[in-house]
Amino acid sequence: MYDLIILGGGPAGYNAAERAAHGGLKTLLIEGRALGGVCLNEGCVPTKTLLYSAKIYDYAKHGAEYGVRFEGASLDHAAVIDRKGRVVKTLVGGIGATMKRAGVEVVNAYGEILGRDAEGFTVRAGDKEYKGSKLLICTGSTAAVPPIPGLREAVASGFAMTNREILDLKKKPEKLVVIGGGVIGLEMASYFNSIGSKVTVIEMLDHIAGPTDGEIGKILYKNYVRKGVEFLLGAKVTAVGSDSVRYELDGKEQSVKADAVLVSIGRRAMTQGIGLDSIGVLTDRGAVVTNEKMETNVANVWAAGDVNGKSMLAHTAYREGEVAVNNMLGKPDRMNYLSIPSVIYTNPEVASVGETSETVRAKGLDAKIESYTLKYSGRYIAENEGGDGIVKLIIDKEHRKILGVHMIGNYASEIIYGAAMMVDREMRVEQVQKLVFPHPTVGEVIREAMFMI
Amino acid sequence: MYDLIILGGGPAGYNAAERAAHGGLKTLLIEGRALGGVCLNEGCVPTKTLLYSAKIYDYAKHGAEYGVRFEGASLDHAAVIDRKGRVVKTLVGGIGATMKRAGVEVVNAYGEILGRDAEGFTVRAGDKEYKGSKLLICTGSTAAVPPIPGLREAVASGFAMTNREILDLKKKPEKLVVIGGGVIGLEMASYFNSIGSKVTVIEMLDHIAGPTDGEIGKILYKNYVRKGVEFLLGAKVTAVGSDSVRYELDGKEQSVKADAVLVSIGRRAMTQGIGLDSIGVLTDRGAVVTNEKMETNVANVWAAGDVNGKSMLAHTAYREGEVAVNNMLGKPDRMNYLSIPSVIYTNPEVASVGETSETVRAKGLDAKIESYTLKYSGRYIAENEGGDGIVKLIIDKEHRKILGVHMIGNYASEIIYGAAMMVDREMRVEQVQKLVFPHPTVGEVIREAMFMI
Repeated sequence: MYDLIILGGGPAGYNAAERAAHGGLKTLLIEGRALGGVCLNEGCVPTKTLLYSAKIYDYAKHGAEYGVRFEGASLDHAAVIDRKGRVVKTLVGGIGATMKRAGVEVVNAYGEILGRDAEGFTVRAGDKEYKGSKLLICTGSTAAVPPIPGLREAVASGFAMTNREILDLKKKPEKLVVIGGGVIGLEMASYFNSIGSKVTVIEMLDHIAGPTDGEIGKILYKNYVRKGVEFLLGAKVTAVGSDSVRYELDGKEQSVKADAVLVSIGRRAMTQGIGLDSIGVLTDRGAVVTNEKMETNVANVWAAGDVNGKSMLAHTAYREGEVAVNNMLGKPDRMNYLSIPSVIYTNPEVASVGETSETVRAKGLDAKIESYTLKYSGRYIAENEGGDGIVKLIIDKEHRKILGVHMIGNYASEIIYGAAMMVDREMRVEQVQKLVFPHPTVGEVIREAMFMI
Repeated sequence: MYDLIILGGGPAGYNAAERAAHGGLKTLLIEGRALGGVCLNEGCVPTKTLLYSAKIYDYAKHGAEYGVRFEGASLDHAAVIDRKGRVVKTLVGGIGATMKRAGVEVVNAYGEILGRDAEGFTVRAGDKEYKGSKLLICTGSTAAVPPIPGLREAVASGFAMTNREILDLKKKPEKLVVIGGGVIGLEMASYFNSIGSKVTVIEMLDHIAGPTDGEIGKILYKNYVRKGVEFLLGAKVTAVGSDSVRYELDGKEQSVKADAVLVSIGRRAMTQGIGLDSIGVLTDRGAVVTNEKMETNVANVWAAGDVNGKSMLAHTAYREGEVAVNNMLGKPDRMNYLSIPSVIYTNPEVASVGETSETVRAKGLDAKIESYTLKYSGRYIAENEGGDGIVKLIIDKEHRKILGVHMIGNYASEIIYGAAMMVDREMRVEQVQKLVFPHPTVGEVIREAMFMI
């Protein structure tokens, strides 16, 4: 009998397991694949190893602008993939060790909820059954593979890949077509563009980078057009062949040749085959319905991470798992989705938190919106020849509270958490003005902008 | 007649001038050299252009670890210095434009206070006299050149240099001796080590990096020993010859050959020759005495930046200038020196804010002190083969308030401002736990550490 059974060992699950065990709950963590989930095994972390190698290679290509000359530089894609495998293995091992240290029991099998009785919930994993008084569902998500003619066959043949398979692609494609210009599509487009593949991104919307602030998205777009990525915006894929992708653009059917295709049009919550019906857990459009305490409609059943479809980010998953555990332990806690940062690890990086120009308009908020060049930063100028990065502030007019901060430019990924803190704590412009940011940094443009808005 | 005359156009002065003009004060800014002061012309910013070039070169040297191979890489030191000149020129021009836009009048001459009368203060600059009702002294600091036998002659001959001259050194020294292992000495040692000079750092104390937390300083030390920098700790320079430096170590006189010497043992406030006596401004050990509102002992006379000897950092200077201006404008404001971050732009970078292990001990604070490896960060592992970075937390035991955060590892420079915010706002461990940091970042180790302390 466990106090808590967690289904799924990704960021939501393994982190919640550790917190729960530290909180005194006897915890069982059930995971059918490797610990770490999509994020660690085929998402955030492995892509960062690839992108870092690409960045080193890009630095070399532009070294002359900074006084560093190279006779010849080459990126060994297979070596990069090998290294990625080692990094992931190290980190997966680290999670296993953390679970052991925390006293979390781990079962390596797929779990399925069988039902509940007076004693609690019954979950089957492998050929064993486990009982727990509380359940936390963290089964995550999988890449959506839409019903496009030929796509399933292309995935089966290896011609088309999701984020999972492309990270194990040992041979550099000469010509890569990316279907979907969101975060995953752009990061992989960035990597393969850097290493010399010809990349075409097909996107249904009229802009890339999904819900990213439009002005920031446009700057990112321009950067990648300059780097040689081809974008087909407002284009709908109609069929995938054995060496090409057909799409409709401006009412015309056209086709682009490829020797590899990445499908990155979105992700679907994993709610099938885990026995949610056996205890009546409510889902909406395939995702488990949760409130801000991460409770489902069933008492003692929580859900955290991609499976609830709220934000589909690893760091949201961490926090959601913690919120669920805190509430289990009787410590009031709830999610604030408005202050969750997001990052696109392209080069330049994009990072955002809070309201965008578009959400302000949609919500009818009375906000002041201004953008400032990162060239106000001496460090930015020192490190970015020809850079066009900006920081954009969204400030509520009445109280001068910081509603949103958006950046494009390197280091943005590491800077944005502080901005998220400002949004979360509802800080006002005048409060940030009184903080001291180190000089010279790129981040200090946020502070300087507070004097200009 | 001006509302405000500012002596000195460095970070304290130019920034205060802009804020004052925006606040409605008729402002005169007097600067004898280029706008931007030491920081922009011969300090923070130019060193960062050098260090960035060195970083690109270092990346190439270690590229194979990340799957990127280079046949031949070379750093063209003269080209790096040329580029530095262009970057500085751009930024100095930017400050001039900002002054113009803000309506600040700028005089390019050395200023000297002549006295005060019922109308205000009289300041001479060049062959003209100006009157102002308020004075802000921002004359900065100069490199200390101690009375070591032979040192003055060596500086005159060009064999020994301060931060000013070394940044214009066109030829890479084969053998560089750095006297003083503080921030400036370490950053320049880092650059010349990267480009292939043999570097010896002579430091009087038994540790490098001055007041940096000792554990962090030791890790930095080990990194640079591995990179081939020679450190002579507890060594006192006794004489500088024409091609060597003599020092005393363990009671023995020894000598090290050099073809260039950097003197970086500290900086002295610039209070001579600016007429402070004419109005009776109090100084202490050569620095203008100020309170936390940046007032001097003389009514309507303020001092900000290095000249008051408090912290000798550009970002402190910015904020001090703003505090002074706010108080001039009747808006209560005061400095909080405890939450000022500091950075050493070595590779790995060091960044700190708040109490250290050493200050906690000296002050007798009841604090919990723990260090955590940056290997908790997937991004850190992805980007730092063999890295030994840490984040160190200093937490007050009674209220769990964050008193200090110290890091060694890249991106620390851009991460630390958020930690400074935590210290400044006296946030507690449990509050930081509830913030969401983006994943995967190096910065999120700060958050993770909050669950372990």
